[in-house]
Amino acid sequence: MKVSIVVIGDEILIGQVKDINSNYIANVIRPEGWSVDSVAIVGDEPTAITSAIKNALKHSDIVLTTGGLGPTKDDITKMVLTKIFGGRLQLDPSVAENVSKICHERHIKLNDLTARQALVPTSCRVIQNKFGTAPLMWFERPDGKVLVAMPGVPFEMQSMFNTEVFPRLLKHFGTNEYIGHRTVLISGLIESEIAHRMGSFENQLPEKFHLAYLPTPGLVRLRLDGEGTDREKVEKELDIQFAKIIAEFGKHVLWENDCTLPEIALELLKKHGLTISTAESCTGGAIAASLTSIPGSSESMMGGVVAYSNDVKRNVLGVKESSIDEYGAVSLPVVEQMAEGVSKRLIKTDCAISTSGIAGPTGATASKPVGTVCMAVITPGGIAVDHYRFSGNRTQIIERTVNMALIKLITELKKL
Amino acid sequence: MKVSIVVIGDEILIGQVKDINSNYIANVIRPEGWSVDSVAIVGDEPTAITSAIKNALKHSDIVLTTGGLGPTKDDITKMVLTKIFGGRLQLDPSVAENVSKICHERHIKLNDLTARQALVPTSCRVIQNKFGTAPLMWFERPDGKVLVAMPGVPFEMQSMFNTEVFPRLLKHFGTNEYIGHRTVLISGLIESEIAHRMGSFENQLPEKFHLAYLPTPGLVRLRLDGEGTDREKVEKELDIQFAKIIAEFGKHVLWENDCTLPEIALELLKKHGLTISTAESCTGGAIAASLTSIPGSSESMMGGVVAYSNDVKRNVLGVKESSIDEYGAVSLPVVEQMAEGVSKRLIKTDCAISTSGIAGPTGATASKPVGTVCMAVITPGGIAVDHYRFSGNRTQIIERTVNMALIKLITELKKL
Repeated sequence: MKVSIVVIGDEILIGQVKDINSNYIANVIRPEGWSVDSVAIVGDEPTAITSAIKNALKHSDIVLTTGGLGPTKDDITKMVLTKIFGGRLQLDPSVAENVSKICHERHIKLNDLTARQALVPTSCRVIQNKFGTAPLMWFERPDGKVLVAMPGVPFEMQSMFNTEVFPRLLKHFGTNEYIGHRTVLISGLIESEIAHRMGSFENQLPEKFHLAYLPTPGLVRLRLDGEGTDREKVEKELDIQFAKIIAEFGKHVLWENDCTLPEIALELLKKHGLTISTAESCTGGAIAASLTSIPGSSESMMGGVVAYSNDVKRNVLGVKESSIDEYGAVSLPVVEQMAEGVSKRLIKTDCAISTSGIAGPTGATASKPVGTVCMAVITPGGIAVDHYRFSGNRTQIIERTVNMALIKLITELKKL
Repeated sequence: MKVSIVVIGDEILIGQVKDINSNYIANVIRPEGWSVDSVAIVGDEPTAITSAIKNALKHSDIVLTTGGLGPTKDDITKMVLTKIFGGRLQLDPSVAENVSKICHERHIKLNDLTARQALVPTSCRVIQNKFGTAPLMWFERPDGKVLVAMPGVPFEMQSMFNTEVFPRLLKHFGTNEYIGHRTVLISGLIESEIAHRMGSFENQLPEKFHLAYLPTPGLVRLRLDGEGTDREKVEKELDIQFAKIIAEFGKHVLWENDCTLPEIALELLKKHGLTISTAESCTGGAIAASLTSIPGSSESMMGGVVAYSNDVKRNVLGVKESSIDEYGAVSLPVVEQMAEGVSKRLIKTDCAISTSGIAGPTGATASKPVGTVCMAVITPGGIAVDHYRFSGNRTQIIERTVNMALIKLITELKKL
């Protein structure tokens, strides 16, 4: 089943907020073999919204809109939908009740603007919003096509899509198509090297099977898609083809599943019953934050130190003054002592990650340009240290360092 | 000047990676009064790419495409562009030279796939990619409309857009329109309360002036846009109207500029010559990471502790065992001791932020449901502690906690 998404909001076009809802929808519908056909982002402008929705309804059986439903003046979606699907705006008592209930729970005074949320087109069925005041609206065309209008606030939209909208869509649309996926994470090779080795593989793929390359810093995700009416047959063929990819890349295969790097690291730590701590300079807590963002991480992740200043490196982690003087704060001896300091003395853990680098834009020297990063990883197998020179701006260098540190940890844990 | 963006890539539609390029473009062009008219995200599929590009060219004078230019089989944009703009694919020696230079610099062996990057449509002018192997292509239609095809890798696209593509577009398109903006950050009021108070203000706004509401957790951004041919006149009117908004919201005005929360916190810390450290439990390093993501943060941010386990709270930060036993790890006495431990003993700083909470999905008790968060902020003005009950999933609770802790810090620093 193909879904089109229309994202509505000036704030997105102007770059003030990012659209994260369409990515969320894509990930929720994927396991059911559904996919997103296109996403259109338009401003709070009736002509643009109308044309995007009409265009989406032309190409897809299901159109989802997000945003443009708040109580404020820049929200005009309801009027546009009434023009497209007919009917008129009318007060819905069940919505009014829901709005006043939610306002009451949040100790918010109900005002006339909030009350206006209860006006809905007579041409839709309302799906009550459990997490906010803007009602969701389900429109059906005579030809069976469906449009669901959802709020733009990510938490409301995502919670409602997961619990109400998608289950209803699944029930409404029986489907014959099935799309399956396999993903492998390859490290240590760049996209074109991988593509070169995959040339003849791609040529022998069955019809409706497709290989996609998704490069991220330090890592390329290879995703094999297969489509067909027989779910079992598609899955079997995916297994056969996927095994060929795994065989081709051997030691470069980091993980045979579509997981994030912190998820993989934590899975391996749990498998071996190991604890970990972090000592971060240039990544400033981003490695700890990425690990602790995963539910259940407290089983393995004990804590860490953000050793941003040299004082903290010395006084808290016990890095020798002489090492900083002799080699500089961005050096292998310093990251080695940082990792040992945090895991052997400050927080007693089996494993550790440490980083020190020059994320820029300032701080560079002749021998250590912006992007110079040192890191150390401690596991029961010993300590592994390395230095890198990453390109990019501050944000990118930090992101690359976080990824590479986790890849390094995963590589060491896989040896156990 | 209105720009349309076409984002190309299966990996985005399937939800495996997020499109961050269109947001970047919007932010780069905004200060020049240019804006994004629409964004279309399509898969690596010729029909979809063709229709999105043709549609964009119908509505906008400038169309930017990102993605679909890599050397691998799922990249077909070059062929589509040749069909739309005419000509044929031909080897460009200057691109071939650039590709081999970049491969050489990165110690990558040049293979036939990488070499294929040098094939470009005869109907375009090449803009040499300084950061990768895929050449950028500038197409001009007889009616003056321009399409620039750019790579999808965010670092390459962003660096090239900033240094080459946007300067050339600015030179090519003279413009008479000017769009100016003012943004104010309001805390402690929700969107509908703000809208209620802004009703009559919005009615008296001049034509082509517009107020937009951008709610984020704990914060609403109010953005006032004004459009006109006379830049000076627009700016003057924006000042007059903006002053009315500021006067209306008084103490709820957190900041009169479109900055991020860590940027504001660091600006205030620098202004008062203060240092800061963090002691994070439920946020797991995310507050430290958000502060250190800002260039120059090392002037104020010394470091911090991720006290994820109770052992770390006790042994590293000196939280009393009896306090954890009596009040629990998520309690005001514990966050108070965490903030004091990090700033008065472990890392000597003027200010501190500490957090402890239940981010879920597990860890809740009858009296402390998921979303219960305690935090403390130390400034030279004293210590401020507070507890909250945030809604949402794990990621959202962490995000809300980070935002609220920074708002709290900013509020306390503004009192100095």
